[in-house]
Amino acid sequence: MDYTFSDKTSALKPSAIREILKAASIPGMIPFAAGNPAPETFPTGQIAQITERILREQPIPALQYGVTEGVSALLSEIKTQLVDPEGIGSDNDAMLVTSGAQQVMDLAAKVLCNEGDTVICENPSFIGSLNCFRSYNANLVGVDLEADGINIELLEDALKREKNVRFIYVIPNFQNPSGVTMSVEKRRAVYALAKKYNTLILEDNPYGALRVRGEFLPSIKSMDADGRVIYAGSLSKILAPGLRVGFALAPKEIIAKMTVGKQTSDVHTPILSQMLACEWLRETDLQGHFMTIRDIYRRKMDLMCDLIDSEMRGFFRFQRPEGGLFVWCELPQGVDMLKFCKRALKRMVAVVPGTAFSVDENRPSSCVRMNFSTPADDRIIEGMKVLGKLRERYEKHIAAGKTDI
Amino acid sequence: MDYTFSDKTSALKPSAIREILKAASIPGMIPFAAGNPAPETFPTGQIAQITERILREQPIPALQYGVTEGVSALLSEIKTQLVDPEGIGSDNDAMLVTSGAQQVMDLAAKVLCNEGDTVICENPSFIGSLNCFRSYNANLVGVDLEADGINIELLEDALKREKNVRFIYVIPNFQNPSGVTMSVEKRRAVYALAKKYNTLILEDNPYGALRVRGEFLPSIKSMDADGRVIYAGSLSKILAPGLRVGFALAPKEIIAKMTVGKQTSDVHTPILSQMLACEWLRETDLQGHFMTIRDIYRRKMDLMCDLIDSEMRGFFRFQRPEGGLFVWCELPQGVDMLKFCKRALKRMVAVVPGTAFSVDENRPSSCVRMNFSTPADDRIIEGMKVLGKLRERYEKHIAAGKTDI
Repeated sequence: MDYTFSDKTSALKPSAIREILKAASIPGMIPFAAGNPAPETFPTGQIAQITERILREQPIPALQYGVTEGVSALLSEIKTQLVDPEGIGSDNDAMLVTSGAQQVMDLAAKVLCNEGDTVICENPSFIGSLNCFRSYNANLVGVDLEADGINIELLEDALKREKNVRFIYVIPNFQNPSGVTMSVEKRRAVYALAKKYNTLILEDNPYGALRVRGEFLPSIKSMDADGRVIYAGSLSKILAPGLRVGFALAPKEIIAKMTVGKQTSDVHTPILSQMLACEWLRETDLQGHFMTIRDIYRRKMDLMCDLIDSEMRGFFRFQRPEGGLFVWCELPQGVDMLKFCKRALKRMVAVVPGTAFSVDENRPSSCVRMNFSTPADDRIIEGMKVLGKLRERYEKHIAAGKTDI
Repeated sequence: MDYTFSDKTSALKPSAIREILKAASIPGMIPFAAGNPAPETFPTGQIAQITERILREQPIPALQYGVTEGVSALLSEIKTQLVDPEGIGSDNDAMLVTSGAQQVMDLAAKVLCNEGDTVICENPSFIGSLNCFRSYNANLVGVDLEADGINIELLEDALKREKNVRFIYVIPNFQNPSGVTMSVEKRRAVYALAKKYNTLILEDNPYGALRVRGEFLPSIKSMDADGRVIYAGSLSKILAPGLRVGFALAPKEIIAKMTVGKQTSDVHTPILSQMLACEWLRETDLQGHFMTIRDIYRRKMDLMCDLIDSEMRGFFRFQRPEGGLFVWCELPQGVDMLKFCKRALKRMVAVVPGTAFSVDENRPSSCVRMNFSTPADDRIIEGMKVLGKLRERYEKHIAAGKTDI
């Protein structure tokens, strides 16, 4: 038979990242296109020990159905170890354990957005979130990013102009894909504008713990006097993403609705994942762990950035991020970005075309997103040398006056 | 600030089951309201061994991000162990690993339903699915159940009458809450009607393996010559529900859309859960395991049903199911069902009011759903004695001619 699909889904294309991730799984491909946290940061021995203990001491609770809200001991540990030190959360807030932070975006959009309602996003922004909002037929409005975060004037223009703005979606720390960190002044300004135009903020902070230089900046949620910030946290980058444990911290009324939404989506997040995360948070010196993994991320980021300097020699224009997983690189004017990505892929180096992250997918982009956390060090070196050779080829063409490159 | 929610969510109330489950967690409460599989069926020792092996031999794949489609080795095991023996699936079908079977309903509704589109359901039906369809603002149309399944004449009336029927949702084996098994003739008739009116069928089969008497009946998916059946399978009742591993088997085009929907919902189902399920399926004599757990379910079901006979003496009218987790009991005419539930709860026995499962929540119900898989045997005996005493009290009132009972 012929199938017809819902309007909201018909427009949705498979995530370019996911498709390229599949290409990235071709044996031998160098995975600069991925977004995996560095596997050497996973506390594998500790996870094995904790899991053994849980399945020996509490097998039935670990394997039986649980409540949608999440394992209460995990909620307590998240509060003590991740929420309180961030200086966020009030008596008017509640929490919900989610199946990765991705589910926070999904449930927030589900409970807040009617079809056609507006969501304002940084442009570019994380494709997984953009596609999530698209899957609710939201009217996505992009506001350009600058080196210190979202353009505040354009944000106010959008808030003035657009109807039914349900929330502003931002990733203030080491944004995906741009690597940009929003300044404190801009965080305050975003909050003030949300207040002025009486809308909500969805603050996504998956990478906050992965700061490799510069000073900690307060999250927007820490300024939330009125209860207008939904905060999405994750254990994917500090423990392990395969467990799919994230959380939402938001005003109680919103969490109550999101909990009902989660009941109908997946009932609850797997209990073994939750108990494992709980025990890990309980027995880990988290600040010590962060120091260890920050050293790993700093080394890998600097390795890639130094190689971009030496191999790409200005062919990639970029800003060295203060943390996170990504370096955002702009190609020279006149270079066809998509052709560049395909040429790199042919040479077994996968990078993500910048268009994947555009709010308006038809808007051209001259950027690519490079990831340094997935590949091992020798693969970073190898891949950058391949891209260096590709740069040489481009420069010869440019020197020869060719235009269609 | 004041919050407004999406239209589709505003109408959604917390699942009565979930709320009663919470009441059921009050220490001492006898949990006839639950829907947990019998914990004594969980292969806890084997799960601990397999998990230890996975985290020793393949810790990074178990903890890293994976593809949305699911772990490919698990998809193969599901095909060999659960799909092929059921005689379902064709070359035009594909599969998707989901976060429990609940997510199959969620993704099917997401990709197929615009707001206002119609979903036809058995009446009564599983509240988790009904609420899921409500969360997409579907127009829910209930068709009454009979002792051998959905009323076929009323189903055809609904198909004739309703516009934009996107699918017919059925649970043919040991339906939740009614315990009813749909006859082969009715399975064929439902398929024929779906064909005649050119719509899809969403066949939910969480309990199929839990048949305690009678003969195996072919699923509707096994009759699917045209690619109009989306089949929802689950490991929750044969392995363990806390792992949240289910799967969809459906025409490739539909699975492709559902996969994109899952990307934006939770990226993928936890890998450790998937690898554990995979290894368990690989090394288990599944038919032997089914024999073992069927013995447990048969014993518990018969224990409860025998006690309903001896303690309730016709006060509960019921049909002994051929499998599953639930016994559906009708109260005598004139007895206020909700008051009965509250009186039982006061005596520390939790049962679910039948209204929770009504497509039209305002339609009165004189039934309660009783679960025999969650409580231990001694708790079943204890709880049934409490309900027996409550019956005596009712019968005295009835004998005394009281009407408001």
